Amino acid sequence: MTSRPNPTAGIIVIGDEVLSGRTRDSNINWLAVNLDRIGIRLCEARIIPDLREAIVATVREFSESYDLVFTSGGIGPTHDDITTECVAAAFERKVVRNAVAEARLREHYKGTGTEFNDARKKMADIPEGATLIDNPVSSAPGFIVENVHVFAGVPSILQAMFDGISDRLAGGLAMTRLTVQCATGEGGIADMLESVQRTHDGVKIGSYPWSRPGQIGTAVVVSGLDSDVVRKAAAAVVEGVRARGHSANLKEQGEDED
Amino acid sequence: MTSRPNPTAGIIVIGDEVLSGRTRDSNINWLAVNLDRIGIRLCEARIIPDLREAIVATVREFSESYDLVFTSGGIGPTHDDITTECVAAAFERKVVRNAVAEARLREHYKGTGTEFNDARKKMADIPEGATLIDNPVSSAPGFIVENVHVFAGVPSILQAMFDGISDRLAGGLAMTRLTVQCATGEGGIADMLESVQRTHDGVKIGSYPWSRPGQIGTAVVVSGLDSDVVRKAAAAVVEGVRARGHSANLKEQGEDED
Repeated sequence: MTSRPNPTAGIIVIGDEVLSGRTRDSNINWLAVNLDRIGIRLCEARIIPDLREAIVATVREFSESYDLVFTSGGIGPTHDDITTECVAAAFERKVVRNAVAEARLREHYKGTGTEFNDARKKMADIPEGATLIDNPVSSAPGFIVENVHVFAGVPSILQAMFDGISDRLAGGLAMTRLTVQCATGEGGIADMLESVQRTHDGVKIGSYPWSRPGQIGTAVVVSGLDSDVVRKAAAAVVEGVRARGHSANLKEQGEDED
Repeated sequence: MTSRPNPTAGIIVIGDEVLSGRTRDSNINWLAVNLDRIGIRLCEARIIPDLREAIVATVREFSESYDLVFTSGGIGPTHDDITTECVAAAFERKVVRNAVAEARLREHYKGTGTEFNDARKKMADIPEGATLIDNPVSSAPGFIVENVHVFAGVPSILQAMFDGISDRLAGGLAMTRLTVQCATGEGGIADMLESVQRTHDGVKIGSYPWSRPGQIGTAVVVSGLDSDVVRKAAAAVVEGVRARGHSANLKEQGEDED
């Protein structure tokens, strides 16, 4: 099938508020787009509750299964923020007060009228031996333990944390991904798509039908690591659709909006 | 901790396009909200790739772990639509052409100028013994095998499929969920929240800080199955925040928008 030497990744979103539907997660999609851009292949994303057993087991499983793991949520000051202690437990490490993190938080709260109390000091507690991840928004840091990257759940903070470390992530070859917009349903081109995928090594073809009033179409996404082969496969799709009497247009990466 | 007799559920979103970031999933949040409304507790959601081993293993694991399982995606006519054969494999069933589904599809395509070809007929192939789920949008049905409910990935179709079967799902007591909007950061009330949760049996408290220019606050969400106890706990949160010199307002379910 497809040969993919790129590093793999898994995302763990931790939060009852996402599972109850109260909060709509946006971190998975943001990370997916930004990992894809630097050639890291997202293989799985899970949304799990604020439960110790679930977090510890999932962090262990992901750490063994994927090259890179990213978690979102549960590193604030309240009783339901248990991600730090669970990630520490997953790697059998102690949680210790980190002097650098504590100094940053103390500085952050200085002169704000907000007391740097015990609950807020908890945000300086980090698994032993972990590397801090800067938080330019609200100071409370994330951290890295082995291959697990622990981010805050607030999207603006998660994005700032990721941007701060992304150049240190070992990315791979960026995927080439071309979209062929076809003015036909997917059922009439299914056999052709299957045959193009089979005859172009390392290429994966996805098809995504859509409809608007009075119009139907299919976005065919051709992707792979070898851009020459991807281009040839996309051209074969265009030709195949036109041969069936429908129009087809190739769009470059980033152009497709639907 | 919290006692929860309500039925449990898990969601499996199947699709490379979600993991590559090309498509932003909206089905998890929609199902989460609508399951919560009828007293079904969503315990986990996973986004997995279009890979046979991953789909079969996840369907099996979820079917054993949760009372109800919902899948989204992968039941169309093309080569990357492998959900049906994978769900069948998970339960060691054969895939058979379903006469009712085939008749509905034939009727759907009649007079449209679209040929009801082999690829489209594939959408009438269903695991043996499965119950069909109506698709009022585009006819190709979903299906139920044991406790697994297989939906299309297109949001409008998934929603119509869910609405068509939701009255047959064995729901539980709807959760009472009250939001206390507090004009303070969460670090100053963390100890109080923990104590309120500890002293109100079956109540779960989540805290979600927010900030706008010149203003910070925390949405405290108090939830549980016993509405009396939830109300008492929410009142205790309001009192606790006010005792610390900050304003706090209780909002009824559905009122909080952030």
